[in-house]
Amino acid sequence: MQQTQQHTFQTLNTIIIGASGYTGAELVRILQQHPYFNLMGLYVSATSQDKDKAISQIYPQLKSIVDLPLQPLPNDLVHLAQNCDLVFLATDHQVSHDLVPIFVKNGCKVFDLSGAYRVNNRDFYPQYYAFEHHYPDLLSQAVYGLAEWNAEQIKQANLVAVPGCYPTVSQLCLKPLVEQNLLDRSQLPVINAVSGVSGAGRKASLTSSFCQVSLTAYGVFNHRHQPEIATHLGQEVIFTPHLGNFKRGILATITAKLKTGVTPQQVKEAFQQAYAKQPLVRLYFDALPTIQGVEFTPFCDIGFVVDKGHIILIGAEDNLLKGAAAQAVQCANIRFGFQQTEGLY
Amino acid sequence: MQQTQQHTFQTLNTIIIGASGYTGAELVRILQQHPYFNLMGLYVSATSQDKDKAISQIYPQLKSIVDLPLQPLPNDLVHLAQNCDLVFLATDHQVSHDLVPIFVKNGCKVFDLSGAYRVNNRDFYPQYYAFEHHYPDLLSQAVYGLAEWNAEQIKQANLVAVPGCYPTVSQLCLKPLVEQNLLDRSQLPVINAVSGVSGAGRKASLTSSFCQVSLTAYGVFNHRHQPEIATHLGQEVIFTPHLGNFKRGILATITAKLKTGVTPQQVKEAFQQAYAKQPLVRLYFDALPTIQGVEFTPFCDIGFVVDKGHIILIGAEDNLLKGAAAQAVQCANIRFGFQQTEGLY
Amino acid sequence: MQQTQQHTFQTLNTIIIGASGYTGAELVRILQQHPYFNLMGLYVSATSQDKDKAISQIYPQLKSIVDLPLQPLPNDLVHLAQNCDLVFLATDHQVSHDLVPIFVKNGCKVFDLSGAYRVNNRDFYPQYYAFEHHYPDLLSQAVYGLAEWNAEQIKQANLVAVPGCYPTVSQLCLKPLVEQNLLDRSQLPVINAVSGVSGAGRKASLTSSFCQVSLTAYGVFNHRHQPEIATHLGQEVIFTPHLGNFKRGILATITAKLKTGVTPQQVKEAFQQAYAKQPLVRLYFDALPTIQGVEFTPFCDIGFVVDKGHIILIGAEDNLLKGAAAQAVQCANIRFGFQQTEGLY
Amino acid sequence: MQQTQQHTFQTLNTIIIGASGYTGAELVRILQQHPYFNLMGLYVSATSQDKDKAISQIYPQLKSIVDLPLQPLPNDLVHLAQNCDLVFLATDHQVSHDLVPIFVKNGCKVFDLSGAYRVNNRDFYPQYYAFEHHYPDLLSQAVYGLAEWNAEQIKQANLVAVPGCYPTVSQLCLKPLVEQNLLDRSQLPVINAVSGVSGAGRKASLTSSFCQVSLTAYGVFNHRHQPEIATHLGQEVIFTPHLGNFKRGILATITAKLKTGVTPQQVKEAFQQAYAKQPLVRLYFDALPTIQGVEFTPFCDIGFVVDKGHIILIGAEDNLLKGAAAQAVQCANIRFGFQQTEGLY
Repeated sequence: MQQTQQHTFQTLNTIIIGASGYTGAELVRILQQHPYFNLMGLYVSATSQDKDKAISQIYPQLKSIVDLPLQPLPNDLVHLAQNCDLVFLATDHQVSHDLVPIFVKNGCKVFDLSGAYRVNNRDFYPQYYAFEHHYPDLLSQAVYGLAEWNAEQIKQANLVAVPGCYPTVSQLCLKPLVEQNLLDRSQLPVINAVSGVSGAGRKASLTSSFCQVSLTAYGVFNHRHQPEIATHLGQEVIFTPHLGNFKRGILATITAKLKTGVTPQQVKEAFQQAYAKQPLVRLYFDALPTIQGVEFTPFCDIGFVVDKGHIILIGAEDNLLKGAAAQAVQCANIRFGFQQTEGLY
Repeated sequence: MQQTQQHTFQTLNTIIIGASGYTGAELVRILQQHPYFNLMGLYVSATSQDKDKAISQIYPQLKSIVDLPLQPLPNDLVHLAQNCDLVFLATDHQVSHDLVPIFVKNGCKVFDLSGAYRVNNRDFYPQYYAFEHHYPDLLSQAVYGLAEWNAEQIKQANLVAVPGCYPTVSQLCLKPLVEQNLLDRSQLPVINAVSGVSGAGRKASLTSSFCQVSLTAYGVFNHRHQPEIATHLGQEVIFTPHLGNFKRGILATITAKLKTGVTPQQVKEAFQQAYAKQPLVRLYFDALPTIQGVEFTPFCDIGFVVDKGHIILIGAEDNLLKGAAAQAVQCANIRFGFQQTEGLY
Repeated sequence: MQQTQQHTFQTLNTIIIGASGYTGAELVRILQQHPYFNLMGLYVSATSQDKDKAISQIYPQLKSIVDLPLQPLPNDLVHLAQNCDLVFLATDHQVSHDLVPIFVKNGCKVFDLSGAYRVNNRDFYPQYYAFEHHYPDLLSQAVYGLAEWNAEQIKQANLVAVPGCYPTVSQLCLKPLVEQNLLDRSQLPVINAVSGVSGAGRKASLTSSFCQVSLTAYGVFNHRHQPEIATHLGQEVIFTPHLGNFKRGILATITAKLKTGVTPQQVKEAFQQAYAKQPLVRLYFDALPTIQGVEFTPFCDIGFVVDKGHIILIGAEDNLLKGAAAQAVQCANIRFGFQQTEGLY
Repeated sequence: MQQTQQHTFQTLNTIIIGASGYTGAELVRILQQHPYFNLMGLYVSATSQDKDKAISQIYPQLKSIVDLPLQPLPNDLVHLAQNCDLVFLATDHQVSHDLVPIFVKNGCKVFDLSGAYRVNNRDFYPQYYAFEHHYPDLLSQAVYGLAEWNAEQIKQANLVAVPGCYPTVSQLCLKPLVEQNLLDRSQLPVINAVSGVSGAGRKASLTSSFCQVSLTAYGVFNHRHQPEIATHLGQEVIFTPHLGNFKRGILATITAKLKTGVTPQQVKEAFQQAYAKQPLVRLYFDALPTIQGVEFTPFCDIGFVVDKGHIILIGAEDNLLKGAAAQAVQCANIRFGFQQTEGLY
């Protein structure tokens, strides 16, 4: 069969700051093969031990695919901002807090993967992130990048605060039920989620050392993702994160009480209405998601069982992809008018 | 320092049927070093592929510690029963169902690790175990071997139905709250538990093959341990088991609503009252249990956090030990008047 | 920046037989995004339990990427062969043995991932594969698909016998030394290789069950890949395979004595001459390959250290990719005149 | 059956310095149940972050078994030394170097698990351990604690330098062949060994973080255990260590050329002569050792295949036990005239 294709397209100057972390490396891998986002530079903190190394020296799987250097962030950030169309910030929360205004002011669209602009409430930051937030205007402008639910706002955004792994899977599971008003709100949904160790980031620490990692709960009643989820979901929840003995992926098991009389069919329809046209959420009706099914994929998988007046939802995603890098690129695709899956599979 | 010790003691003739499985092998390991239970013989089904092999051929870690042969179960079970003081059944549910009467009738104390005699309700078996139960009298006589709670009955028992991994950890966590009437019973406690793959037993199966195992839920709203827990706890629960990618251990995360006004101190006291004198339950007040903390130990570890009117409990145990073999030996120790930890650490 | 691209190209009708195994699934994943090989159908044995399922039902990671059904192989294989340009056989050795003649005769190019046509010596098959080989003509025609070394022959081949994981990494490591005559042939090179469990295929087996897998050697002095390596390398070797506790990847550690006077520089030049222009072999001069560096990539990574008259080579590849599916597609790319990396990253 | 036993025995005052590391914790576990070595105190460096914590706070598996505090090492080491009969040093090489003289001089028997006294050659230390050795007399007095081979010397020793994991398994495998003069010494034995991550010790490091660990070689031609092995074996070797993705255990695959005419039977006899009466070496004639077979056991397992004039040996041990703590206790048992397995299983 003979075929002819013709493309005319524009590429956009793109940089990644914080490229040496696990999320940064996933962004590199995705963007190097993206047809429209042209990867201009990879940056790390000027004090990073990784500066001036090739990204592929740290991540050998990228060798001969992307061998760009990890440049120290320059002093003249204004110049950098003026010369790129979009930036992905895979930086620490406080670093993002400081960088965002410079890029936004200079017309560069920002996709921030940190927690610095996710909750429009200045009181939240000292309590949960141990810093004062100085940019209330940007906080109000920031669009929460839960892509399947906020696409219209993302299209207009100068700053997208991309949600992380736990909030993404938790909200994607619960939002259809909350929006359709199917939950018995007298009882709090119970979210138990297990994350792979990569969620802790690339760093030397006893807690994430090979011999110490063993399935356990942490941050019980006390994790900053709980109020983030509750705020954006419009529903209080009980959220218990766990560390699992695997590298990547996250599995959430969510138990909630349904309103009296809600049928399995109503639940199914709520999910189909929400996600039937969403390419990056995959619904399971005859099986349940697994970590393995989402590893190295950009999808969030959702399955559920309804019985005895309750629903148990199982959500799974790759914490570094739909829970971070892939969702950031999905948001950027939406922002610039591309197919939302462009470059993602 | 010079010391003199003198022991006078009796040893009891002990056999294991079903010794070739993971639980059986743990029983072998424990019993070979037990001072009072004298391991007379290891048995497997007469049709087993493992028959006549040494146990250490299958479990090389036992080599030169226990090299006893796996004998095929003889035709003359009465003779076998009459010549031993106690038997551990690590057999399939239906095999246990059939063997128990023979041993009980012939005066041999039975510690059954299967599900065949755990629930005193004949209707339960066709539904959850796919067989008809033919021994209602033995069902009523059987003592449920949750050792910390049923010691008085165990002391008199001819037949102890030792609970398995999920029910043990779930009940040890919830029972102090139920007994002290601290739970708000308008909401069902939510039990999420993750078991290591050894829980599925030693057998060839695609589901438990190395490349297929990946954290996932199963048996949602539909697992036979749910009614077992509810029956013995006297409290309905929502129970969601998961398969984790580790060999042994189980971690349960349990979320429950407390009655209005219940204080953390009351909860703490309930646990101390229940377990302060119980050597095989370890309470955590300043940390949370992990799988690694219980692997290869006979303990059930319990920690909890009380906040916002709810309690989150974390329970952990080695599924093959406190969740099976060690608890069976603990019951036998109690039955024969030994220290309950004898031979266990 | 604005760019215009125009492609005119032909797509080739492509099928996979044996698509339900681990290698088959990797072929599916690669070919669904290949610009020129048009995936027409996935086939399994007519007696397979997987027949008529969607591939994504077995491999959820493919869900909504490839949902093609696994068709039972039709009776009329001639018709099937006449309607496709190329076929990938990810079938058992004996199944490949039987299928190859039909496809070759009907003008369909065959890329066989089994061992059925790798060694041009009929005596080899009864001894190592337990079947008689009936197609000596095809055996002589078959081109051994070690892509970096046999590209010229592959371009003309009707039948490519793609080497598996151990022989690929072993030969890619040793061939530059053998070809440049740098080895002291009085001593046999010692190949120790560790493979992930996926190398054993997708099947229920006690040996590859999660709880049994533990680093160990197997097939000592007795593995069929030893004579395959020796034949194609033109150098006897000692080859000891091991099973490792990871899902995918293979690491080979090869120790060989160099001819007196051979310098590290000569060795380096031999490797550069062999592979500098080969995109799918990556040379390491300042580090050593790891399993993680090649997982999910199509590369074979090679590093080495020369000292005390010996060389120690470390080779790594994803056993399912460069050790199977990716190399098969690489061969097909070469055969049909495409870039050899087309569709591979 | 009724039995009466009477023991009269002396217990020996025992301390562990460096008790907070992985090897230290294994020593604690073994010694707390040892009938004759009475664990008087656990010590860590006065600057350790772990000081004053209970050992069970760091190793929850020890909770309620051993809850002794980790005391900071006192200033008055002489007093400490005078009040104990034996000390186990699980300390850094240089710390052991400094502590040993104090304890030896004060009549306390020393079992040093570091590398500080293993090689009686002062030149060795600056090159391989980066410190100058100041105690040549102690170096010459030190007995190398390869228990199966040096028992007579150990019985008289004031200072036992216990070999570590790689040298123990390597020498136990090769020594019968070297001693019986069965090797063709024109070719160097090739030792490939894979160690679990615990071999790197308990510390925060990127290299041993969960997400970075992946099977790889290290220290190629350059590891300090190579000269240690060669010295004590009396035979040069090529030694290539690897890091594997498991917590504990070590597997060595050793390839060596036999002298012309050496038969499998001669090899077998050499091993039986060496180890038939040694309880902690287990010989395999019909199978091969695995990591799982030795995990949590005090054994070194050895199997081998002889073919084509070569021998391939597979040795396995728990790196923290026969490769460290258990062998240290074995040496102490020998030193004080107890059964060498006392307290070990």
